Amino acid sequence: MAFVNEHYLKLQGGYLFPEIARRVEAFAKANPAKGKRIIRCGIGDVTEPLPPAAIAAMHKAVDEMGQRETFRGYPPPTGYDFIRNAIIKTDFHDHGLKIDADEIFLSDGSKGDCGAILDILGADNRIGITDPVYPVYVDSNVMAGHTGPTNATGGYEGLVYLPCTAANGFVPAIPRDRLDLIYLCYPNNPTGAMITREQLSAWVKYALANDSIILYDVAYQAYIREADRPRSIYEIDGAQRCAIEFHSFSKDGGFTGLRCGYTVCPKELTASTRAGKKVPLHGLWTRRWSTKSNGVSYPVQRAAEALYSPDGRRQVKALIDHYMTNAGVLREGCAAIGLDVHGGINAPYVWVACPDGLSSWAMFDRMLETANVVITPGIGFGSCGEGYFRISAFNSRDNVEEVVRRVKTMSLQPA
Amino acid sequence: MAFVNEHYLKLQGGYLFPEIARRVEAFAKANPAKGKRIIRCGIGDVTEPLPPAAIAAMHKAVDEMGQRETFRGYPPPTGYDFIRNAIIKTDFHDHGLKIDADEIFLSDGSKGDCGAILDILGADNRIGITDPVYPVYVDSNVMAGHTGPTNATGGYEGLVYLPCTAANGFVPAIPRDRLDLIYLCYPNNPTGAMITREQLSAWVKYALANDSIILYDVAYQAYIREADRPRSIYEIDGAQRCAIEFHSFSKDGGFTGLRCGYTVCPKELTASTRAGKKVPLHGLWTRRWSTKSNGVSYPVQRAAEALYSPDGRRQVKALIDHYMTNAGVLREGCAAIGLDVHGGINAPYVWVACPDGLSSWAMFDRMLETANVVITPGIGFGSCGEGYFRISAFNSRDNVEEVVRRVKTMSLQPA
Repeated sequence: MAFVNEHYLKLQGGYLFPEIARRVEAFAKANPAKGKRIIRCGIGDVTEPLPPAAIAAMHKAVDEMGQRETFRGYPPPTGYDFIRNAIIKTDFHDHGLKIDADEIFLSDGSKGDCGAILDILGADNRIGITDPVYPVYVDSNVMAGHTGPTNATGGYEGLVYLPCTAANGFVPAIPRDRLDLIYLCYPNNPTGAMITREQLSAWVKYALANDSIILYDVAYQAYIREADRPRSIYEIDGAQRCAIEFHSFSKDGGFTGLRCGYTVCPKELTASTRAGKKVPLHGLWTRRWSTKSNGVSYPVQRAAEALYSPDGRRQVKALIDHYMTNAGVLREGCAAIGLDVHGGINAPYVWVACPDGLSSWAMFDRMLETANVVITPGIGFGSCGEGYFRISAFNSRDNVEEVVRRVKTMSLQPA
Repeated sequence: MAFVNEHYLKLQGGYLFPEIARRVEAFAKANPAKGKRIIRCGIGDVTEPLPPAAIAAMHKAVDEMGQRETFRGYPPPTGYDFIRNAIIKTDFHDHGLKIDADEIFLSDGSKGDCGAILDILGADNRIGITDPVYPVYVDSNVMAGHTGPTNATGGYEGLVYLPCTAANGFVPAIPRDRLDLIYLCYPNNPTGAMITREQLSAWVKYALANDSIILYDVAYQAYIREADRPRSIYEIDGAQRCAIEFHSFSKDGGFTGLRCGYTVCPKELTASTRAGKKVPLHGLWTRRWSTKSNGVSYPVQRAAEALYSPDGRRQVKALIDHYMTNAGVLREGCAAIGLDVHGGINAPYVWVACPDGLSSWAMFDRMLETANVVITPGIGFGSCGEGYFRISAFNSRDNVEEVVRRVKTMSLQPA
C-alpha cells in the first residue's frame, strides 16, 4: 500500500494567488461589464516586454540550437560558465564582494530554490519566519514536515514567527532564543520595507553566534534606491559563513515568463550533523542539482547573460525606473486620501493599512467590487498582515494612474 | 546550530556522469593527441539540431515576449492549455487512451519529476528499483531518507532491488513480497530492453492487488519500433489507478538543452495515510507545483507544442530514424566481432557484455585508452550492470561508423 506524504494534508486552503484568481474569476463571471474594467495589482507579475538585449540574445541562441555545429545538449546542472562569470563580475566583484563562479547556482527561478534549499537541510532545525511573509517559505516547510498543524492564529505549530509591524519598520527584532534557519527578504515582499546595514549586521552577528543560517532573498534587489542600504548580505562581514542568498531575474529583467534565477551558496558555509560535525553545504547543493536537475534552458541562460551587457543594463534600469515611478504614483495617490502607506521606496510594492477597520479580505472584496482593482490581502502573507493590503507597481503607467483615480473616488463612497 | 540533511552523506561517490566526465578529462589532459580523437557514446545526450518547427516556434514566442501586447509573465505552474491539449490529443486520445488535460503536468524535464514525485509520497514506502537502473531513482530516495547506508554489494539498505539480467530479458520478475512503489522504465535505460504487454499487465495487476504505485518512465517512448509493445502504461486496464507516467521531450524532440517534459498524474490515483485513508495524489501534485515552481519558460512550451504539428512530427520521426539507424550499426558492429549484444531495437541504447571477463570500469578504461571511445560502465547503473557496458546511439552517423571501425580493430589487439 503506497503511503502519501501526510504533511501536505496540513496545508491550509489554496496557495494565496490561486485563491485570488478564483475570486477574481467568479466576480468577472457574475459581473461581465465590471469584469472588463478589472486592473490587476495583485500578483507581483511584470507587465513590460523583455529588454531588447535579451530578445536578441535568445534569437541568436535559438538559431544556434538549429545548427548541428552550434547545437548544445544538456547544460551543466548549475549553469554555464558564461552566465556564472557575468553574475560574479557585475553583481559581486564590481561591488567589492568576493564570490566565486562555482558558488553561483543557476536555476529556473528563485521560487523553486527557496523550496529546494530545504532538501539539503535537516529535519530538526528551529525555523524563523517573518510575519507577514512570502507564503512559499512557510508552505515548503509544511510540506517537508518541519511543522505541526495550524494553530488558532492561523500559523503552523513549530515555526517561530517574527512579527514585522509598522512599529519595527517591518524588520524583525533579533530573537532571544536560538533559531537555526531564518528567512529574511529585503527589499521585502510583501511590505516593501528595506532593512538597514545596521539591522542586517545584527542578524549576521546573531547567526554567527548561534551557528544559524540566514536564507536571504534579494529577488527585489534591483529596486533598492537608497544608496546606504545593503544590496547583498555578503556586504556584511562574516555572512559567507552564515548565509545563502537567492536572486531572481524575474523582477529586474522581467523574466517571470522566461524562468531564471540563481542562488549563492558560499564554500565556507557549513551546517552540522546531529553529532556536531560541520559539513560544507556547497558540495551537497552541487550534488542536489546534479541529481535532480539538468540545468536551465540554454536560450534562457543567454538571455540572462544579455542583461549584464551594457545595453542590457541600460534597458533593465529603464524597466526599474518605470515600475518605481509607478510605485511613487501609488504611494502618493494612497497617501493623498489619507491612507497609512508603507514601502514603495526601495521596492515595487506599496503596503497600505486598510481604512475603516476593514479586514484585509474585506478590503480585497471592496476594492474588487467597487474599484474593480485587484490587490493582495495582507492576511494572505500571515497574521501580522491582517489590516493591510499590498498594491503591486508592476503595471502600465496608464493603469496605475487609473487605479489612483478609482481609489480616490472609492474612498468618497464607502461600500 | 543549523542541521544538515545527513541522508546526503550516505550517497556514494559522484553521480555517474560527472565521474565519467572527470575520467575523460583526465585522460585527454594526459594524452592531448588521443584526447582529440575521443568520441563520446557515454551520456545519452542528443547531437542533432532541434527540429525546424521547434526553432520557428521559439523565434515567434521570443518575438511575442518583446512586445507589450503579446508579452507573457508567469506561466500556469503546470503548463499552458495549448501544450497540455496538444499532448493529450496526440500522445493519448489518438491512441484511444483517456487522459484529461489537467492530468498533464508540464515540467522542465523528466529528471526533475522523477525526483520531485517523492515530495508527495510518504517516508514508509517499500521501494522497488530495477538493477541496473537510472541512478536518479536511487539517489533521490537516498536524499529523501528512504534508505539506510550502502551494503556490501554497493546497494542501499532498505531498497528492494529487482534483478534485470539476460536470463529474464532485463524485465524483472513479479516479486513475492509487497512493494509500495516500483520504478519501471521501458524502453529501458540503460539496457535498451523493452517490456511486453503481458509483462506490463502483470505489473499493473500486482500493483492493483497491493495498492502499490508504479512510477513508469517512458522517456524513450518514441524509440519503440515493435508495434505490439505498450507505448504507455495507460494502455493496460486499471493503470490509471496505480501508475504515474514520466515523459520527456529530450529524446524525441532533442530538447536536452531546452528542458521540457511532462508527468501524467491521473485523478483516480490515490495513496494512503497511515490510518488507511485514501488521498488522491492529483491535488497534492498540483499543490506541489503551485508552491515550488512557476512553470516552464514560455518559448520552450511553444517549442514543445510545435513537435506536435504535422511538420514537427515528421521532423521528430526523422530524428528518431537517424538515431535508430545508428543503434542498428552499433548492434551489428558489436555482434560482428562476437560480442553479446542486447537492446538497440526499441531504444537508442545498446547493452553489451564485456569481453575477456573484464569488469565494466576496466572496459570503460580500455575503450577510452585504446579506442578513444567513451561508453558507460554497466556497474554505474547497479550491481547487475557489472560485466556490461552501454553504448549510446546519440551521435552522428560518421561517428558511429568510426566507433564500429575502432572497436573492430581494438578487439584484435587486447590491451
